[in-house]
Amino acid sequence: MPEENYDSRKIDGRSLSKKLEEQIGKGVDQIQTENGITPGLATILVGADPASRMYVRLKHKACERVGIHAEDHNMPGHTTQEQLIQRIWELNTREDIHGILLQLPLPGHLDEKSAMFAIDPAKDADGFHPYNMGKLLIGEEGLVPCTPKGVIRALEEYNIPIQGKHAVVVGHSNVVGKPMAAMLINRNATVSVCHVFTDDLKKYTPDADILVVGTGVKHLIKADMVKEGAVIFDVGITEENGKVYGDVDFDNVVKKALLITPVPGGVGPMTIAILMEHVLMAARNSIL
Amino acid sequence: MPEENYDSRKIDGRSLSKKLEEQIGKGVDQIQTENGITPGLATILVGADPASRMYVRLKHKACERVGIHAEDHNMPGHTTQEQLIQRIWELNTREDIHGILLQLPLPGHLDEKSAMFAIDPAKDADGFHPYNMGKLLIGEEGLVPCTPKGVIRALEEYNIPIQGKHAVVVGHSNVVGKPMAAMLINRNATVSVCHVFTDDLKKYTPDADILVVGTGVKHLIKADMVKEGAVIFDVGITEENGKVYGDVDFDNVVKKALLITPVPGGVGPMTIAILMEHVLMAARNSIL
Repeated sequence: MPEENYDSRKIDGRSLSKKLEEQIGKGVDQIQTENGITPGLATILVGADPASRMYVRLKHKACERVGIHAEDHNMPGHTTQEQLIQRIWELNTREDIHGILLQLPLPGHLDEKSAMFAIDPAKDADGFHPYNMGKLLIGEEGLVPCTPKGVIRALEEYNIPIQGKHAVVVGHSNVVGKPMAAMLINRNATVSVCHVFTDDLKKYTPDADILVVGTGVKHLIKADMVKEGAVIFDVGITEENGKVYGDVDFDNVVKKALLITPVPGGVGPMTIAILMEHVLMAARNSIL
Repeated sequence: MPEENYDSRKIDGRSLSKKLEEQIGKGVDQIQTENGITPGLATILVGADPASRMYVRLKHKACERVGIHAEDHNMPGHTTQEQLIQRIWELNTREDIHGILLQLPLPGHLDEKSAMFAIDPAKDADGFHPYNMGKLLIGEEGLVPCTPKGVIRALEEYNIPIQGKHAVVVGHSNVVGKPMAAMLINRNATVSVCHVFTDDLKKYTPDADILVVGTGVKHLIKADMVKEGAVIFDVGITEENGKVYGDVDFDNVVKKALLITPVPGGVGPMTIAILMEHVLMAARNSIL
């Protein structure tokens, strides 16, 4: 008997993001034609961390694909806080820049929070500014963190209902867990937030209709921890000997899942597509 | 056999708030002596709704008790949005006013959200401004919604550990449920948020170590829905024939609870004490 093929259960983040980027590309064309505006993204990278450089490069490539003007502000590793803030202020005032992305982490001598807070909330492509996080919490979602927004978009694309479902979020970071929980609550899911201090993770995850895991713990979620028919998003990434692993033991968990994102090729591409969408959104808002 | 007395299980919001107000009163004295500043709160009430008038009066009385200067901006029911925003802007610029409280609900012709957003976040005594809500979500709690903050303060006063405990929040309003969940997540509780769309509330509440209920559904929570030894906060209020009821069937639930707030006399007084604390906090921040 041939082994069962679970490919149809895989949420293909690459093709989802392609579809989304096509829509964004059309939106970019439209705002250029109708308003004479080319949406612009400025990325700020301090130092030369190889992983950060790669992430920035991926974002610039996406800009190219959808027609967004992208500027690379690569500042030296010894940049001072004042210099960084100065650069952010300059970008805040530039009319041709609609989105500003500060690539994290910053070198240790810099204060990430005050730098992030300096970004004009209207240009906060990453959605991390407190003003945007607060609007998210009260249900007025505008520019919001891209990764959880990508999860929501995927749920919509696959017509997975959220309201009344039990969503379990594992991880309570500011980048994924907390904004993810807020988005799911806003859509009337019953939401349980678990994390490293949770007493017994197995008490919660097997009840999840929708499970979102972002902890950075390789293969934390095993097959016996998920419900038959669950929809699972793996937001974790662990690198080991040049291979990347997610937080979910994919090969075994896929056998129980209705849908599941692989790592890589799952939420990653969606995150970047949402970032593009945010730059377009910010450009549109700038003409209101 | 005499009926058992459960008084020791009651979280006495009145005496807790008294204790808190004494501390705040000392803080007010100190900032007057050392900095020559009297903390000031301006309340804005549009129209003459009796319940709203009563709430405003309670807040002014608390100001009197702790030595905070209180101003009553009672605007007529036909006030326009522009007039309301104008008043908020005036108060934003006044150096002697450190806290601004817009009493909700506003008359139907006014837009609550844009009015709330107009309040300087540094003077946002109620903690509802998106900037403050966002800081709350990312774990930088400053001025935050008063009722959930009062719950946290009560947990602290009774030395109830939060980290690693399962907290269930019933209700997902912007005023109570969502900020409450954020505060509990920030303190490393495992948090489940239930609400009117939750499939089976009984699946969640009996597992709660800490249960916070704010739905406005009279006696929604019965004894069979809580765990033996749970700590329970009843944030609901329903008026019927001049009597007020909470969301928890107190008389029966108290028999299983470790601690429980009554209605009235539970979270209500704490909410007002936290509001006073916020005005003092805002006054202190104004001299930084």
